[in-house]
Amino acid sequence: MEAKRLIFALFLLFLLSKSSAFPSRKSRVHKPCKRLVFYFHDIIYNGKNSKNATAAIVGAPAWGNKTILANQNHFGDLVVFDDPITLDNNLHSAPVGRAQGIYVYDKKEIFTAWLGFSFVFNSTEHKGSINFAGADPLMNKTRDVSVIGGTGDFFMARGIATLMTDAFEGEVYFRLRVDIQLYECW
Amino acid sequence: MEAKRLIFALFLLFLLSKSSAFPSRKSRVHKPCKRLVFYFHDIIYNGKNSKNATAAIVGAPAWGNKTILANQNHFGDLVVFDDPITLDNNLHSAPVGRAQGIYVYDKKEIFTAWLGFSFVFNSTEHKGSINFAGADPLMNKTRDVSVIGGTGDFFMARGIATLMTDAFEGEVYFRLRVDIQLYECW
Amino acid sequence: MEAKRLIFALFLLFLLSKSSAFPSRKSRVHKPCKRLVFYFHDIIYNGKNSKNATAAIVGAPAWGNKTILANQNHFGDLVVFDDPITLDNNLHSAPVGRAQGIYVYDKKEIFTAWLGFSFVFNSTEHKGSINFAGADPLMNKTRDVSVIGGTGDFFMARGIATLMTDAFEGEVYFRLRVDIQLYECW
Repeated sequence: MEAKRLIFALFLLFLLSKSSAFPSRKSRVHKPCKRLVFYFHDIIYNGKNSKNATAAIVGAPAWGNKTILANQNHFGDLVVFDDPITLDNNLHSAPVGRAQGIYVYDKKEIFTAWLGFSFVFNSTEHKGSINFAGADPLMNKTRDVSVIGGTGDFFMARGIATLMTDAFEGEVYFRLRVDIQLYECW
Repeated sequence: MEAKRLIFALFLLFLLSKSSAFPSRKSRVHKPCKRLVFYFHDIIYNGKNSKNATAAIVGAPAWGNKTILANQNHFGDLVVFDDPITLDNNLHSAPVGRAQGIYVYDKKEIFTAWLGFSFVFNSTEHKGSINFAGADPLMNKTRDVSVIGGTGDFFMARGIATLMTDAFEGEVYFRLRVDIQLYECW
Repeated sequence: MEAKRLIFALFLLFLLSKSSAFPSRKSRVHKPCKRLVFYFHDIIYNGKNSKNATAAIVGAPAWGNKTILANQNHFGDLVVFDDPITLDNNLHSAPVGRAQGIYVYDKKEIFTAWLGFSFVFNSTEHKGSINFAGADPLMNKTRDVSVIGGTGDFFMARGIATLMTDAFEGEVYFRLRVDIQLYECW
């Protein structure tokens, strides 16, 4: 009798130990292991602002050029950027890192883009990089891209980043709010 | 005696519970947690098909231009695309999403490409995106790229996608079959 | 009494089995499951070296062109490459694979780049691909990019790769040492 009760307890524990492995993975969906919010500021070169520009058109479609974003929702414009990252939405705040990479406008009918870029940190606060890739349907209030890896403080990071256009001035300046939610932290 | 038998059972269970953690990871190699097959259709702008084109050359080597794919196996041509995704191989089927991103022909001697792109879904069936990156040695019947992340329904997805050129018409149209095998599903 | 002792043993085992799952993940931070060192060689097309060139400028800023790397630390130059991978630092050693993808110089003030590329292997030693993305602050002696996925022998790989500029000849040739450390091996 005693033995049977123990075997039963044993099985309960066994089930418990099994179930503990997978839900822990599941639960991470709902609760990031790290969360960081930043802003970054993009000033596109337009032929006149060479001093302030942080980005430049380097690829353009047959109907475009390198100093004016192309017709048809900028379809085909490929932009290289090195943008300051700030903790608040002020372009003139002290940068805490740089957002570096490319974006490309990829649709004729509406504004959408595809992004491949990194956040590069080298401060007392953060050292290392976070790498991102994904589609950015600009007309949506918020849109998610993937955190595909990281180095240094962000070693092996994975997660998502929610982008929000925080400001937009003509065709020269925009500011993105980036809410980084990591679900794999090493 | 009873006790010894129980301790033995205990160890068996312990071994079982240990072994259950790692092979589950291994076994996922052989069995995707999600599998999806789609087609996408790429019509490159050639100076005359502006209405139908879903892609455009936006970067080209010194010996190339923006309306004709370059000599030497198109080496150096960088293409931006926003291609319809369909469930079957018919270009005129109702699209279920968009394939958006870039590809670049990267070899002089034979056709090969490098891809960075996303599948973007916004239907009752699927909401979210799947992000891909990898080499595409076009002359192979099938070739694998990586699923590097996902959002929405495909939150945190990882896996591979097997590409197959399903059709190819001159230098203007091609259709890829994409067999997505996810091995990490959250 | 016997029963209580067993329940106690049971709990010890339970705790043990719990603790075995998570630290194994942690410990991987410190010890890669696979490590590989390669070199790759990049010869940029300069209008005269078409035979030897393995890379070409395909995107350039308004002030640049396709045969000379641009002023301002090459900011805005986008390069497509198909570079031989060797086991040692000799350009003329038998290649064991190809490094294919893009890099883009992304800063006006100093040399930095952003990379998206793959190592493609098709030998008796290795079959498959490793995919990389990340920022490359060239002026640092070493810098880390992310391994964002893999296929074939490198199925589902994740990790980091430490890049080191091993040689640099004018603006035409450079050689990178790549120390690949995988922390997720399937």
